[in-house]
Amino acid sequence: MTNGAATNGGAGGPRSSTVFFLSDYGLRDEFVGVVHAVLRRLVPGAVVVDLTHDVPPFDVRAGSEALLRAVPFLGSGVVLGVVDPGVGAGRRGLAIEAGTLWFVGPDNGLLVPAAEAAGELHHVVELDVGTDASPTFDGRDVFAPVVAALCDGTPCDQLGEAVPVDELVRVPRPVCERGRMSDGRRILRAEVTWVDRFGNVQLAASATALPEDVPVLTATAEPVPGKAVAGWGGTEIVSRVRAFGDLGAGEVGVLVDANGRLALVVREGSAALRLGVGTGDLVTLSW
Amino acid sequence: MTNGAATNGGAGGPRSSTVFFLSDYGLRDEFVGVVHAVLRRLVPGAVVVDLTHDVPPFDVRAGSEALLRAVPFLGSGVVLGVVDPGVGAGRRGLAIEAGTLWFVGPDNGLLVPAAEAAGELHHVVELDVGTDASPTFDGRDVFAPVVAALCDGTPCDQLGEAVPVDELVRVPRPVCERGRMSDGRRILRAEVTWVDRFGNVQLAASATALPEDVPVLTATAEPVPGKAVAGWGGTEIVSRVRAFGDLGAGEVGVLVDANGRLALVVREGSAALRLGVGTGDLVTLSW
Amino acid sequence: MTNGAATNGGAGGPRSSTVFFLSDYGLRDEFVGVVHAVLRRLVPGAVVVDLTHDVPPFDVRAGSEALLRAVPFLGSGVVLGVVDPGVGAGRRGLAIEAGTLWFVGPDNGLLVPAAEAAGELHHVVELDVGTDASPTFDGRDVFAPVVAALCDGTPCDQLGEAVPVDELVRVPRPVCERGRMSDGRRILRAEVTWVDRFGNVQLAASATALPEDVPVLTATAEPVPGKAVAGWGGTEIVSRVRAFGDLGAGEVGVLVDANGRLALVVREGSAALRLGVGTGDLVTLSW
Repeated sequence: MTNGAATNGGAGGPRSSTVFFLSDYGLRDEFVGVVHAVLRRLVPGAVVVDLTHDVPPFDVRAGSEALLRAVPFLGSGVVLGVVDPGVGAGRRGLAIEAGTLWFVGPDNGLLVPAAEAAGELHHVVELDVGTDASPTFDGRDVFAPVVAALCDGTPCDQLGEAVPVDELVRVPRPVCERGRMSDGRRILRAEVTWVDRFGNVQLAASATALPEDVPVLTATAEPVPGKAVAGWGGTEIVSRVRAFGDLGAGEVGVLVDANGRLALVVREGSAALRLGVGTGDLVTLSW
Repeated sequence: MTNGAATNGGAGGPRSSTVFFLSDYGLRDEFVGVVHAVLRRLVPGAVVVDLTHDVPPFDVRAGSEALLRAVPFLGSGVVLGVVDPGVGAGRRGLAIEAGTLWFVGPDNGLLVPAAEAAGELHHVVELDVGTDASPTFDGRDVFAPVVAALCDGTPCDQLGEAVPVDELVRVPRPVCERGRMSDGRRILRAEVTWVDRFGNVQLAASATALPEDVPVLTATAEPVPGKAVAGWGGTEIVSRVRAFGDLGAGEVGVLVDANGRLALVVREGSAALRLGVGTGDLVTLSW
Repeated sequence: MTNGAATNGGAGGPRSSTVFFLSDYGLRDEFVGVVHAVLRRLVPGAVVVDLTHDVPPFDVRAGSEALLRAVPFLGSGVVLGVVDPGVGAGRRGLAIEAGTLWFVGPDNGLLVPAAEAAGELHHVVELDVGTDASPTFDGRDVFAPVVAALCDGTPCDQLGEAVPVDELVRVPRPVCERGRMSDGRRILRAEVTWVDRFGNVQLAASATALPEDVPVLTATAEPVPGKAVAGWGGTEIVSRVRAFGDLGAGEVGVLVDANGRLALVVREGSAALRLGVGTGDLVTLSW
């Protein structure tokens, strides 16, 4: 039995013994456990690493962002991603080989950003789906067996017909724009891609979007249309810091987070509550 | 080390290396982790698959339904089920061998429906319980060591005295009745056995309870006595569909779910909120 | 590949294949999954046991109590504990060898009570931290690689400079005082160390703090200053019992819980809600 490292030798040899599993199934029902049980039966030597199962129900974009953040840390293995509002409605199932990873899940945009971050897309196939599967639980009935087949060394291109990359469904990329205001101040307008458990507000902007020599900025929230914002009082002063510990109590900061993205933070507090923003809102930084 | 498949060879050989664990312990405390740690110490070669730990506290019936739904997907192994309001109050502890599975837990009805679905009950024994166990955490002190003994090949009938099957405690089976109204319409009156994370409403009725050629029905909720129902506005029109994708926005449907049961559903929405029903309520379908 | 048991042979041999992981990362984001992925890549033969990840955010004391309760059941392995409000603020990272366990995490008091309960502190070292780590996610970037090194047999004292035990940061021990009132009644005043999912109220007092021949007591709550208490109506009569089942409906009891501590309980109900107390409050028992 191999452990962890993929062995890309010949056809028929074991390819991977690690499955990374992300979904919106939640943990209050037995959905996740049943998929684990199916994998345990089909590939007893594999280890399943749960990335998270608390993606908001049906939120394909939030799931795609979580997968994208996780990908640099996965090494090799098979990624099973299921956030699937279109289950049973004729959307394609996919298997994608990219870099040292395989990705299995619905063709709705969930997998593509992470797969492209993992490396060149060697193979993209539309899964052959049997007809005896329940049309409501493809994670258990369709995707888990495909994951098992990949772990067992079935070549990706034997799982179905090739799909051209430009036919893959994609989710809109989050907004990130730079510009200058009429008074000469520079601005960065970026979408909130994630509010984590602690209330840190990740923006769709990398470290380089903000010059390093700007110690103080202003931040203004722009909620998505139709969404009420509680607690937002206009414009906040924000300090550029390296870590949470550089902030005073209650102070709002912007730092480069553990994914290399800009994030608005409060030390031992919730920047999201403080600023009244959530995933999908826009934040404008100016300096 | 064996992987997954039970080896039912002779006494003393390893019998199973998979433990399926369901409880109402929740994940906010370390209960589940400590049981895992005990199993890791006693049977280091076993893999523990968590089915779910968010059964509502003390809700034996909800736990028994979750186990029953999971059983067809478990292959072989030892099922540890702990929803145990009677811990320390003298109720029996059980080990049951049924089909290719063993079941370990309290004698309160939690295990029996799943065990009977798994196959013939080969052995049912009352566990010999040591006196040094804490009377409040049998999952850790009593059941986990029994699970370990089964994994290590201890025959089920050596774990305690045999118990006649008709002496086992049973939970009431959920209501499922068929009939005809005075105007000739046919009715199916079934208990809600599960509301999942997405708000899908599973009924205690199998696919065959509803003729396939009935495209439209009405659904009327009948809450359990003493329970207020929010949002229920009488009778809803319900479409018979095959999958979520066959429904229009906001439309209520009935389909055969991934467990072969009838379920009321809304596409990308909560049928439970829409209909104002929860587990234990009764729903009457008529056509 | 070794399974479970630590092999303390010579330097260079594998030392442990079990990692026990506790944090305040929660499960709604991918933090825990990413740490698992890093460990899977670095030590593919290790098994990670999640103790809990729902320690309240930044609550070092609550995390230290959970670790302390778990330690007697861990056998051997490496404990990764991360509740870390000071991440990136210059606090030390630690590796501690105590008894048959290693402990890895921040030097903020989280690890010390559990390590001291595990046995003599053989080695305590300050971790050498690389400079390319993100200053916001030491669990992934600093602690997980150290855990992997320990699993692979790197001696603890090669991971950094020794730290004198009396220089370790400690959290205040929970209050536990005994005395006598002016009317001669005896009192035990103890801090609430834990309210579990079921609402059981664990006190910072061991079984011996209460004589066994006292069948009835009174309990009075003393909330932490500045905290409103809902539902507390003065003094409650409390029965000394052995198990939940010894209580009548709605009756409040005190028992020795599964950690050998005194706990206030209600049968199939929440003593915390009944008494209006939470973690950190003080409760006075008198008899």
